[in-house]
Amino acid sequence: MLSHNYSILETLRRGPLQVSIIGSGNWGTVIGKIAALNAKESYIFENVVRIWVHEEIVEGRKLSEWINVEHENSKYLPGYRLPDNLVAVPDLEDIATSTDLFIFVVPHQFVEKVCEILSSYAIRRTAKAVSLIKGFLIDNWKPLPFHQYIQNVLKIECSAISGANVAKDIADEQFSETTLGYSDQESAVVWQQLLDTKYFKVNPIPDKCGVQICGAVKNVIALAAGFCDALNCGSNTKATIIRIGFEEMKNFANLFFDGILEETFFDSAGLADTITTCYGGRNVKCAKEFALAEGNKTWEEIEVEMLNGQKLQGPSTCCDLFSVITHHKLEQSFPLFTIIYCISYQHVPPHAMLTLFQRSETRPIRLKKDCHLCISSNP
Amino acid sequence: MLSHNYSILETLRRGPLQVSIIGSGNWGTVIGKIAALNAKESYIFENVVRIWVHEEIVEGRKLSEWINVEHENSKYLPGYRLPDNLVAVPDLEDIATSTDLFIFVVPHQFVEKVCEILSSYAIRRTAKAVSLIKGFLIDNWKPLPFHQYIQNVLKIECSAISGANVAKDIADEQFSETTLGYSDQESAVVWQQLLDTKYFKVNPIPDKCGVQICGAVKNVIALAAGFCDALNCGSNTKATIIRIGFEEMKNFANLFFDGILEETFFDSAGLADTITTCYGGRNVKCAKEFALAEGNKTWEEIEVEMLNGQKLQGPSTCCDLFSVITHHKLEQSFPLFTIIYCISYQHVPPHAMLTLFQRSETRPIRLKKDCHLCISSNP
Repeated sequence: MLSHNYSILETLRRGPLQVSIIGSGNWGTVIGKIAALNAKESYIFENVVRIWVHEEIVEGRKLSEWINVEHENSKYLPGYRLPDNLVAVPDLEDIATSTDLFIFVVPHQFVEKVCEILSSYAIRRTAKAVSLIKGFLIDNWKPLPFHQYIQNVLKIECSAISGANVAKDIADEQFSETTLGYSDQESAVVWQQLLDTKYFKVNPIPDKCGVQICGAVKNVIALAAGFCDALNCGSNTKATIIRIGFEEMKNFANLFFDGILEETFFDSAGLADTITTCYGGRNVKCAKEFALAEGNKTWEEIEVEMLNGQKLQGPSTCCDLFSVITHHKLEQSFPLFTIIYCISYQHVPPHAMLTLFQRSETRPIRLKKDCHLCISSNP
Repeated sequence: MLSHNYSILETLRRGPLQVSIIGSGNWGTVIGKIAALNAKESYIFENVVRIWVHEEIVEGRKLSEWINVEHENSKYLPGYRLPDNLVAVPDLEDIATSTDLFIFVVPHQFVEKVCEILSSYAIRRTAKAVSLIKGFLIDNWKPLPFHQYIQNVLKIECSAISGANVAKDIADEQFSETTLGYSDQESAVVWQQLLDTKYFKVNPIPDKCGVQICGAVKNVIALAAGFCDALNCGSNTKATIIRIGFEEMKNFANLFFDGILEETFFDSAGLADTITTCYGGRNVKCAKEFALAEGNKTWEEIEVEMLNGQKLQGPSTCCDLFSVITHHKLEQSFPLFTIIYCISYQHVPPHAMLTLFQRSETRPIRLKKDCHLCISSNP
């Protein structure tokens, strides 16, 4: 928990805010480009925006050199010119000790390692962070969103961003939106000022946990959508399964967190991201392949076969959901999430998903607004 | 307005309830099949379910004969065996005077004519109705949902059904859901008992107006989705435009009606129907064609070219929305609906839809819960 949330206006007394992107994959690089262009235009940000690069050699040259000399991330975003004021820095200590605004965009599986290293350095106590990481951790049989994890480990305030944001399309400056979950007005203003641009609209909503649960759970709904595709379902059935998934996603968020807002589900993080993920994207494609293989391929095999080194988040988030659901004996409240797990890991045939909902007693439970486990508060 | 809402239990004193389907197109026939099968199993419904047929000759034989002798609607649902207890009746007076439960499924453009004729007969004052008609009328510059119109003209209580319900898929018994908007508990129970089946789940929600606004307005959102397809937008952009449309749909419902419920938008009538309509269906396909024609084809021409006699509801509903919006000077609150109209009828190029939202000042207004025009109450 945070002992004190420092005011950004106080921090500004000593000069413009230093921005650092933690992560230089395709999404990190695109966000770095937007932040660097916006930083040039605003008095409150230091002109140079830094991007932390886990150094590697690409075509005989260091990745940091590619970015700093050629202004291109030749490995993760080839073909896009980056602003001159986006500067690659391979030294995490250098970043850790001189940053006012951290943007976290490392892959899920590296978060704990990176935060551990950062926490060993003297981070500015006045710094703020925003997490663009999808998924959540499990702590004491409860979902722990990454903004909370970052707050706990680094002792700085952390907001959260999630939305229908395919990195490549935003690199192409195609119009899209994202949802910014925040808790204090100053953070909302500063992140919007740093990241909102004409083709990338930042909608602030005071619901960090809701934003992150959507960003993680939509990948599980996409597995069900992929099973529908494999079963050759009509459009009614696929939309119905997605709708049931959406209802379970809302119920899950409301059960485990206080202060979840309905508008989060109507925003980019909810509605828009769920539908793009279910009508395209890797989770739905791999789930279709998984179902068509009729038990003869594991998720790992499909990942290797179809994703060319990228990772699939649906199956691991599905396991996380299932462990939480079974621990709290909530299977009957989450029939879809439960059957997705059984199909994915217990040799249940995909068709069982449809027959399950055709039984009259299987309906997602309508939760009352004030019905939750009160396990975690929403800081 | 209704003077008295009679209890169904009172009506049952004189015997089982007589059910009649008004309309024998494909959706009416599918609903007739479900109702007839359920009527067989329940003590409260008369065994015979009647379906009103606008008599016509199909392959040398009357349509009513096809249904009553061959148990097939050879014109609108060929190839599907109908239950023996679904009986075609061409005489509207016969239907009018002896029906307890009316199910309205006539096309939009015939509703007024049919209701006018029905109202000239002695309808049972205790009768109830449900409307499956999509769209709404305009009355005194306000949207008038069909359940209200039916209530006004026939002086009987009317519920409303809408959802992700492609008739052909439900005829194939593919799993789907629908939303039943009701106002009294008895109506909810009776319609659910008559229409809910294992592959067609009826979710009752006490919000008739919300259900019907969704059913109409989603076709307008689908026009925008079709423009996105023509513009070759990425998945982010299309999802974002759909999301903005969804927000305007919610705002529109809340502005014009009291008692709109959030859960309607999360149910089949809202979320599920909107996404199926935007990722398939005739409105999105025709809108793509319209945009690709770059002003060289009208909607009427496209309808003739692509729909083989079927009607497109998006453009006419778009005109209805626009007339209401401009009358109340609400263009700034509904930028997407307004630009869809301008693209459809005022030679504005489809690309303007994207540039509009890239301007920083164009955002759908976040309405406060208690902000509405108080024009109509939700009976």
